[in-house]
Amino acid sequence: MESEIIDYFSNYVALSPKEIAIISQLDILKKVPKNTILLKEGEYAKHCYLVLRGCIRSFYLIDGEEKTTDFFTENQPVVPVSYNTGAPSSYYLETLEDCIVSEGSQQTSEILFKAVPKMEFINRLISEELIANKQVTFDDFKNSSPETRYLKLLSTQPDLITRVPQHQLASFLGIQPESLSRIRKRIREKTS
Amino acid sequence: MESEIIDYFSNYVALSPKEIAIISQLDILKKVPKNTILLKEGEYAKHCYLVLRGCIRSFYLIDGEEKTTDFFTENQPVVPVSYNTGAPSSYYLETLEDCIVSEGSQQTSEILFKAVPKMEFINRLISEELIANKQVTFDDFKNSSPETRYLKLLSTQPDLITRVPQHQLASFLGIQPESLSRIRKRIREKTS
Repeated sequence: MESEIIDYFSNYVALSPKEIAIISQLDILKKVPKNTILLKEGEYAKHCYLVLRGCIRSFYLIDGEEKTTDFFTENQPVVPVSYNTGAPSSYYLETLEDCIVSEGSQQTSEILFKAVPKMEFINRLISEELIANKQVTFDDFKNSSPETRYLKLLSTQPDLITRVPQHQLASFLGIQPESLSRIRKRIREKTS
Repeated sequence: MESEIIDYFSNYVALSPKEIAIISQLDILKKVPKNTILLKEGEYAKHCYLVLRGCIRSFYLIDGEEKTTDFFTENQPVVPVSYNTGAPSSYYLETLEDCIVSEGSQQTSEILFKAVPKMEFINRLISEELIANKQVTFDDFKNSSPETRYLKLLSTQPDLITRVPQHQLASFLGIQPESLSRIRKRIREKTS
């Protein structure tokens, strides 16, 4: 598992054996069972994550109703807004499957930035990618019909569709579960 | 105007007189007249911006129709997705007013990171803020009705409502211009 974290960082910049040893010693791997709440509304996020195995969901609780805003699977970083702003979280993070994550904190980041100065540059590249991804996802959401959103998900993250509960998927797509059923029926009819 | 860029960076970390001198010498200020296309669909973005005066709009051209996705005003950074990914842009950037911007490029960034190492840290803080902002805006959009979105804009960026054309504002809010008129009428009636 450690090697996957190293692979993840090495995708951005090559690391020396010494740098790899420093990162491996940090002991940031964590197993989290299914249905664990990692962050609650009102809490201060102390950790960010990189998902190595499993799936994490973010959701808001609005008037007693869960509004799913995101799913995070293998190799996706999870950086709570509260972690970056220092303000209490407006939303929840929950594991939907048994997960293995790499858990980061302000403390481990500072250690890492000092011991491996290259990490500052790697962090910059990861941040640039995150900013671009968030922008593209938001723009796509705004510019697409629910059916187009579903088709896009089907082509980019087909596994997600079978991994998460359908009412959460519908919420994530910004529609009612019945609308998702209708969309799936329409697509089946078109392709059959 | 240079002092505003310095102020912007100094908000994150204090700069020494020497560092201020280096940044001031970079000659990154640029006047851009109203209705200038800064970036076209299909182009590779060579610049990112910090708006010092004026307003920039991002929009997609989909089936001949403009879909406005964002407005950027004073003290807001504009980092095109294409600038971060190196892929051709999917959208346009246009000035809606006469603008004064601080224009960054990969080249000026590299110079700056070398000459003022502290900028790597400042850049990290700006990126964290951008990631958090984008997340919050997207979540708000997903979780709110068009009327709530409009009311939020009215409370957070009231000037925007009078600065930009109403059909662009409607598009930005994800609604038809007629729906925006109805929402405004409803709010006027409630508050009168």
